[in-house]
Amino acid sequence: MTAVPTVALSERLTAPASLAKARSLIAPALAEAVRRLDPELAAAVRHHLEGGGKFVRGGLVLLSAGAAGAEEARGLVGAVAIELVHNFSLVHDDIIDGDIERRHRSTVWAQFGVGNAIITGDAFVTLAIQLLLEEPTVERVQAAARLTEATQAMIAGQAQDMASERRRFLSVEECLRMETGKTGALLSCAASLGAVLAGARPATVEALAVYGRHLGVAFQAIDDVLGIWGDAATTGKPVGNDLRLHKKTLPIALACSSPTGRDRISTLFSRELSDGDVEAAARMLEEWGAREATMTLAERHLHIALDALSGAEISARAAAELAAVAHYVTARDR
Amino acid sequence: MTAVPTVALSERLTAPASLAKARSLIAPALAEAVRRLDPELAAAVRHHLEGGGKFVRGGLVLLSAGAAGAEEARGLVGAVAIELVHNFSLVHDDIIDGDIERRHRSTVWAQFGVGNAIITGDAFVTLAIQLLLEEPTVERVQAAARLTEATQAMIAGQAQDMASERRRFLSVEECLRMETGKTGALLSCAASLGAVLAGARPATVEALAVYGRHLGVAFQAIDDVLGIWGDAATTGKPVGNDLRLHKKTLPIALACSSPTGRDRISTLFSRELSDGDVEAAARMLEEWGAREATMTLAERHLHIALDALSGAEISARAAAELAAVAHYVTARDR
Repeated sequence: MTAVPTVALSERLTAPASLAKARSLIAPALAEAVRRLDPELAAAVRHHLEGGGKFVRGGLVLLSAGAAGAEEARGLVGAVAIELVHNFSLVHDDIIDGDIERRHRSTVWAQFGVGNAIITGDAFVTLAIQLLLEEPTVERVQAAARLTEATQAMIAGQAQDMASERRRFLSVEECLRMETGKTGALLSCAASLGAVLAGARPATVEALAVYGRHLGVAFQAIDDVLGIWGDAATTGKPVGNDLRLHKKTLPIALACSSPTGRDRISTLFSRELSDGDVEAAARMLEEWGAREATMTLAERHLHIALDALSGAEISARAAAELAAVAHYVTARDR
Repeated sequence: MTAVPTVALSERLTAPASLAKARSLIAPALAEAVRRLDPELAAAVRHHLEGGGKFVRGGLVLLSAGAAGAEEARGLVGAVAIELVHNFSLVHDDIIDGDIERRHRSTVWAQFGVGNAIITGDAFVTLAIQLLLEEPTVERVQAAARLTEATQAMIAGQAQDMASERRRFLSVEECLRMETGKTGALLSCAASLGAVLAGARPATVEALAVYGRHLGVAFQAIDDVLGIWGDAATTGKPVGNDLRLHKKTLPIALACSSPTGRDRISTLFSRELSDGDVEAAARMLEEWGAREATMTLAERHLHIALDALSGAEISARAAAELAAVAHYVTARDR
């Protein structure tokens, strides 16, 4: 048992050294892995991967291997696999959402067409499992099974998200379920996959999975806040986009938790919103307490995540590193 | 060693009893498996699966288990998995090709939108691996690895197909490589997967894989012939569609194998083709021998497939059943 300081959400943080180190290991391994894909896919794959990314999920896999007492490199194949699954979801989600920019570059479908983006994503998710199964040790097979379950949960979250567009309201519970699928499942898998590959005890794997799942919810809640009140320069997305698209995010679900709130949101979302409307709506939502309530919820899930670390049989150093990643990914300036 | 009668391509055949029997086992198991998918995907999944299908790939998995001396039911999980991968490819390919009809019904993207079709395909391919890995015996893990390799080869074939649209010519070798990926890889996997699940010897698995791969090429060659000279009522596709889309299929690659041929095709594909042009082009291609050459090639690959059966250590009954499936799927009236 290790005590982990549970602090409030940070205002601004630089990336922990562990993530920078993880990236220097994972990026070349990922580049090497995708060289196996068909040469006709190379241009789209390169374009997408050159956009960079923070390697948070891959980094968590390495830290998780370390937390289980193994060399971090033991988790490398899992780190590459999880980054492939993450990139599969980004490439497909960009088509689904019609997003033309990511990481300040054109998205794969916008640059190479929908067809190429579909098969690029397909190739990523398939390669992830190929990598894990080509040396089918007990640990790798278990890792492949966990990763596949997480992928399916992520797809379910995406399906729920799309279905929510046709609905007037989501309850906070429905919204949390959807966001746990979309973000929590893969982060939970990431945080436990290294431990699985290192042959850790089930209790350790489970504690790390709990940490990752709640970190995912906290992360997504902050993302929802930034989607309404964020700064375009930092987020790389148009300000107020989620409001313009009438997205049923957590702040909206929380604002809808009273009959008065439902009426307000119903009126707000009854028509197209101009840029001025979006600004006014963001101000009103803040006055109604939606921003505050979402931040409180994020903080609660961050604390559950950190508590799971305190309860895990891992070294103080591993717990501190995982806590640092948790604070970094939930910092408000992402 | 079992002698298998090697006959020429059949004019018309009814489905072998083995496939009808396989379908009666696989269809309910597949319906049961997809019930695990998120309820928000249920409508699209049901719409797609209700279109039916011949269950050739799943049927081959069961026959392959039988050929290895096991109960056919031993292959059932593999049969469901391979049908899921096949349906994943159909749903995604229909988006890529912009096809609005399949099996005389609207395609998933045409009915539910591109986004829903993308995640429906994603859910299918992910579920396939989940099913195999949830009881991770040595055989099932090996089956999952083979299926993943085949899926990647199929994606590569699709990538090559899409890239060929931007090219003026494909050599016969390039075309065969693309079609071996698109069709041969999954049929090869299907024909050997049951044997893998039954724990057959590597030589038996490999012989069945060779049978499946060449059957795939023969099947695709016939498909290409039907794409130019087929009857819309039987194929369910508009007559001459491949010519209208300037598709680089085998008949075109074969017609291009001489400099004169290349000039002819270059002229033919230098502009949009009207319905009248398409008919005239089909007649010309036949005069130039492209249809005959493609049928000869199909027959050659069918014979290689049947020879692989003769060389495999499988029962005469299994060999006869697999040969019947080969004749059925390459019959000209499909």
